[in-house]
Amino acid sequence: MENFKTQTIILTAGDAVSKRVEIRDYFLKTWELDERLYSQLKDDSVFYHRGDPLRHIILFYLGHTAVFYINKFFLAKIINKRINPLFESLFAIGVDEMSWDDLNDKNYNWPPVNEVWEYRKEAKELILQVIDTAELSIPITWKCPFWMVMMGIEHERIHIETSSVLIRQLPIDKVVKGLFGEICHADSNVPANDLVFVSASNISLGKHKGHSLYGWDNEYGQTREIVDSFMVSRMLVSNAEYLQFVTDGGYSEKSYWTDEGWAWKSYKNATMPLFWIKDNGKYSLRLVAEIIPMPWSWPVEVNYLEAKAFCNWKTSKTGDKYRLPTEAEWYMLAQGAGAFNADGLSVADANINLSQFSSPCPVNMFAHSELFDVVGNVWQWTESPIAGYPGFEVHPMYDDFSTPTFDGKHNLIKGGSWISTGNEATYHARYAFRRHFYQHAGFRYVQSEIEPDLEVQEYETDLDVANSCEDNWMVDSDFAGMYYGKLVETVNDVCALDSKNVLLLNAQTGRLAFEFAKYAQHVTALDFSARFIRMPILLRDKGMVRYTVKDEGELLFYRDFVLSDEELRRNASKICFMQDNPNNLKPIYTNFDVIVLPLLLEELVDPVNFLENVHLRLVNGGCLVIASTYDWETNGVAREYWPGGYKKDGEPVRSFDSCKSILSTHFESIGQDVELRHLKRLSSVRSVVLNVKLSMYKLVK
Amino acid sequence: MENFKTQTIILTAGDAVSKRVEIRDYFLKTWELDERLYSQLKDDSVFYHRGDPLRHIILFYLGHTAVFYINKFFLAKIINKRINPLFESLFAIGVDEMSWDDLNDKNYNWPPVNEVWEYRKEAKELILQVIDTAELSIPITWKCPFWMVMMGIEHERIHIETSSVLIRQLPIDKVVKGLFGEICHADSNVPANDLVFVSASNISLGKHKGHSLYGWDNEYGQTREIVDSFMVSRMLVSNAEYLQFVTDGGYSEKSYWTDEGWAWKSYKNATMPLFWIKDNGKYSLRLVAEIIPMPWSWPVEVNYLEAKAFCNWKTSKTGDKYRLPTEAEWYMLAQGAGAFNADGLSVADANINLSQFSSPCPVNMFAHSELFDVVGNVWQWTESPIAGYPGFEVHPMYDDFSTPTFDGKHNLIKGGSWISTGNEATYHARYAFRRHFYQHAGFRYVQSEIEPDLEVQEYETDLDVANSCEDNWMVDSDFAGMYYGKLVETVNDVCALDSKNVLLLNAQTGRLAFEFAKYAQHVTALDFSARFIRMPILLRDKGMVRYTVKDEGELLFYRDFVLSDEELRRNASKICFMQDNPNNLKPIYTNFDVIVLPLLLEELVDPVNFLENVHLRLVNGGCLVIASTYDWETNGVAREYWPGGYKKDGEPVRSFDSCKSILSTHFESIGQDVELRHLKRLSSVRSVVLNVKLSMYKLVK
Repeated sequence: MENFKTQTIILTAGDAVSKRVEIRDYFLKTWELDERLYSQLKDDSVFYHRGDPLRHIILFYLGHTAVFYINKFFLAKIINKRINPLFESLFAIGVDEMSWDDLNDKNYNWPPVNEVWEYRKEAKELILQVIDTAELSIPITWKCPFWMVMMGIEHERIHIETSSVLIRQLPIDKVVKGLFGEICHADSNVPANDLVFVSASNISLGKHKGHSLYGWDNEYGQTREIVDSFMVSRMLVSNAEYLQFVTDGGYSEKSYWTDEGWAWKSYKNATMPLFWIKDNGKYSLRLVAEIIPMPWSWPVEVNYLEAKAFCNWKTSKTGDKYRLPTEAEWYMLAQGAGAFNADGLSVADANINLSQFSSPCPVNMFAHSELFDVVGNVWQWTESPIAGYPGFEVHPMYDDFSTPTFDGKHNLIKGGSWISTGNEATYHARYAFRRHFYQHAGFRYVQSEIEPDLEVQEYETDLDVANSCEDNWMVDSDFAGMYYGKLVETVNDVCALDSKNVLLLNAQTGRLAFEFAKYAQHVTALDFSARFIRMPILLRDKGMVRYTVKDEGELLFYRDFVLSDEELRRNASKICFMQDNPNNLKPIYTNFDVIVLPLLLEELVDPVNFLENVHLRLVNGGCLVIASTYDWETNGVAREYWPGGYKKDGEPVRSFDSCKSILSTHFESIGQDVELRHLKRLSSVRSVVLNVKLSMYKLVK
Repeated sequence: MENFKTQTIILTAGDAVSKRVEIRDYFLKTWELDERLYSQLKDDSVFYHRGDPLRHIILFYLGHTAVFYINKFFLAKIINKRINPLFESLFAIGVDEMSWDDLNDKNYNWPPVNEVWEYRKEAKELILQVIDTAELSIPITWKCPFWMVMMGIEHERIHIETSSVLIRQLPIDKVVKGLFGEICHADSNVPANDLVFVSASNISLGKHKGHSLYGWDNEYGQTREIVDSFMVSRMLVSNAEYLQFVTDGGYSEKSYWTDEGWAWKSYKNATMPLFWIKDNGKYSLRLVAEIIPMPWSWPVEVNYLEAKAFCNWKTSKTGDKYRLPTEAEWYMLAQGAGAFNADGLSVADANINLSQFSSPCPVNMFAHSELFDVVGNVWQWTESPIAGYPGFEVHPMYDDFSTPTFDGKHNLIKGGSWISTGNEATYHARYAFRRHFYQHAGFRYVQSEIEPDLEVQEYETDLDVANSCEDNWMVDSDFAGMYYGKLVETVNDVCALDSKNVLLLNAQTGRLAFEFAKYAQHVTALDFSARFIRMPILLRDKGMVRYTVKDEGELLFYRDFVLSDEELRRNASKICFMQDNPNNLKPIYTNFDVIVLPLLLEELVDPVNFLENVHLRLVNGGCLVIASTYDWETNGVAREYWPGGYKKDGEPVRSFDSCKSILSTHFESIGQDVELRHLKRLSSVRSVVLNVKLSMYKLVK
């Protein structure tokens, strides 16, 4: 296996000619390593078995890593002809397991194994042709053809690892040792684990665009996190340490488990880790292609749910609080361990990158500063569900790599395993799996009183809310103009908002509230819907919102809006956001200096009644601000409640005049009426333009 | 009545101070003349009678002419308070008769007569206040407050005439002679009518904005009409001449009558003109407030239906073709008669403007050149249904004065009567009534072989068609940009349209067809809908289209679009417009050099099938032009027919790419793909913006 010791490519330095050679070599090694994996199957019939009842048969993965290059090259228009459309469909998707609680019996008509090998040959030729001829200039960035080459290679490297897990799940009589290196033969005396103190830090997460290494979209972004000090286990939890939990009845005591964990355990009837075998009271361990007597000093391999139950058990036994590290806490360990170079390539002496064994090894074999196995050996589960860093952008050529996992149900694993190579073995690598999922993964624990905030901002998918976010925040300046800013500036010119207490109704996703807060003393911003008002609250409190918007047909874009405008951020604390129904506003909302009705009238059940009573909520001399299309029809105001838009006694009654007339009982007009044009996005190809009239009134009687 | 000899005001000359005095005097005389009309009622109880069972009680008209000023001043924001909202509603509408075949039994709660007189006093004070204080500068134009003063005055003058007709319909015992001048006492020997030759002419119709006199909106515009020579009766048809028709059984012979005429005659059981009385074989005539022995030399007063029946009878008797004059033919008479001055004020010695009698007079009393009564005596029915001149614009403060009559059912009357004053007595006056309606109106006949084209272009009210007309023709240049022009220029740059034969599908209301015709040799333009394709045909053949568009709520705008672009007009004859369904296009549409699909794909049932076969309709080397949003969803293309907009095998399938790929079997891409922004209007406050991709292909195999 010596020949396969590679590292992912530096994309930002070197000359194009040698870079092409370097990538060609990296591809060929990846390709061969992938194929060599299957030398561990006893014969071709095994390709038709499933490693996991919920995953595809093994053959799928042999085809999939080849098909992936072709499909992506085609999508990116690097090639304009397919090799085999049938295969490129059959082997395209189904990588992710179907949910364990949602079985699926799809029928596939799988081809003979030799046809897949044939396909791989053709694909390899075509990929090499692309590598030999595609445009290459340094640096290689997101939009370059060679980014797609790297995507194919790194994708294949992921599957080398995940397929090895599937092979590990095949019956032992279906596998042979094959040509995949030697396992570790050491099993030391098990050392007692202990805790190491890690001091508090303000840690930077995420990599910048233009970083020297290939990265998946979820790795980009830059954010800082302040992390308190904590204690961490010096070593990964070994099979021996975990056995205490098992023998103490850990798998029978519901209170140790999360609800999700207990449901999984009950469904699986799990009594110990998946790869443990207990025969006549004697434990052994299933590796990828062999079974060995239990190596007690090796790290236990469990899913998150089991790791978490272990921590809860330990908490219950000791009275101290144990849990898994968060993503940021793991980075504190990694920084302390000096395990990576400036590019983020792993440089530690560690059981990683297939550089030591084709298996795990004792948890006290590779020391990294005070700890062991900060990288390598087996992955380490964290408490952190994966999410994009603020400002996350989807890579358009692989738009479902990350976002489907940003659901709060996929937890990050860190550190890599003995078989993690390429991007997997880099500092910024971020892989996440469902919490019940098996990888070559175990854990180390943290002792800390801090309950980390692990809430994941899911993508808001409600079309109305998402479109409102677009209107409010992703302003298309050449067209929509600064509708919100202009509106508020105009109001400020006339109503002098300084030191004023503003009530904003129909706040939607909050842009107006933020704009008003730049001038006013306090803004109370209400919206009909909790789903809308949630967004500006997130913007105020977390500085970002996430939502999906319609592209074409069923296709979506993912938006990460980070509020970077300093002035808006600074003043956001002046805003109180609440849900309430303006048709029946609580009496508490009174004594305001300014009340603003942005596109509100047309949303009300009875706009006339509202205008007749709105003065009761203003202080004497207070200002009423109305921005409206006066378009009752489109918004579904019942005909009998229209203030205008019809003929009465033969004369046209215009709603604008009619509303002015209703208000004249208590108000006088101030300032000039202004016409504003407001663009509202519906999809990538369709927007609505509203002509909005802005007028202001002063309460005089 | 000497005191009431007035003429409408010159609004474009003189100084503001004396103009204010002049208008004040004109108003006061109008007001008094109106009130004096009701001195012909026997007592106040008569105010509660109806002159016509289908019109309001007389009291309504006493209130109405006052209320009208107040309502219009309020609408125009010249005053900001009403006098009596109840009266200003009660006396506001119902001027037009309810249709004679559509009886209506509304209940009104009419006030006492003295309250209406009281109201008139208050109204008069307020109107005088406006006249004394409103801004006045010369010239007085459409948007000036004094235009509204003139509108009130001229409106009142119309009602002086029409109310006199209603009083004429009251039972004779309800009326007295009152203070309304003397009737004519002459009844000459009836002269035999004969025909006068009028030579062909190219006549100008309509007055220009900025004309010296107040005009109703329907008088404006400028158009020319080529009129053939014709023969016209020297005199109006007298009671004596009409008697021949009556005694010849004219009212019993269906073949003389139009269908509409016969239906009316049957409903009314009419046997002679409405104001004729036959008692014991002796005829007499009802005037406004008295009955006199039949003055046989006076003009007969009939409605259009009776006049038309008379002409048909005369045609049937003589074998020559008789009919009424058209509007243009009447203008030829008027120009020959020298009856008006340069301002258009009537200057003929004629029974008009209350200057001679308070009744008609013999038809040979007032000669105007070779003819008699070109103006005055009684109005003359024409064959012409009223319609706006090309480019007609509604006056926004009286938006239902004209347009409800542009329905092909209201015929113009010309020339004025003995009681026509103010605007009624001007050259450009255009009044029209339902054809069964009675006014102080008779007719003269024309003998001509020419069947005039009397088709009225009604306003297209279908929202989709009307909105398409707006998009196509009323381009809002600062925003929408020249979408159509840019599209065609781009195509011409790539496809060199010169000498090409173009097939345009989804032609809508035709702008693209006209733009293509600027470059191409021939354009075949098809649309799904006959209702759409009717519009460009009208534009090509008549140079104009009419439609209504949505303003706010139920309110509409009336649009008259006149195609003034010389280049578009000149080339329009190259276009063949047809209705056809592109989903199932006739085989005849083949061998084109260029096929253009503007926003068509998204309207098809099966866009893929269409793209797979469209090459069959092109010559070798022909061009295919596609402009599309590729937005299947909004346009209702069934999901199974979408070319893209979804994920397949995990990869996004973009419709644009997918369509390109389908076309690659026969076509190659030419030129650059271009993104165009296209604005589509939905109402005054709401538009849709589409992002349209334009791409071009050449048929190569």
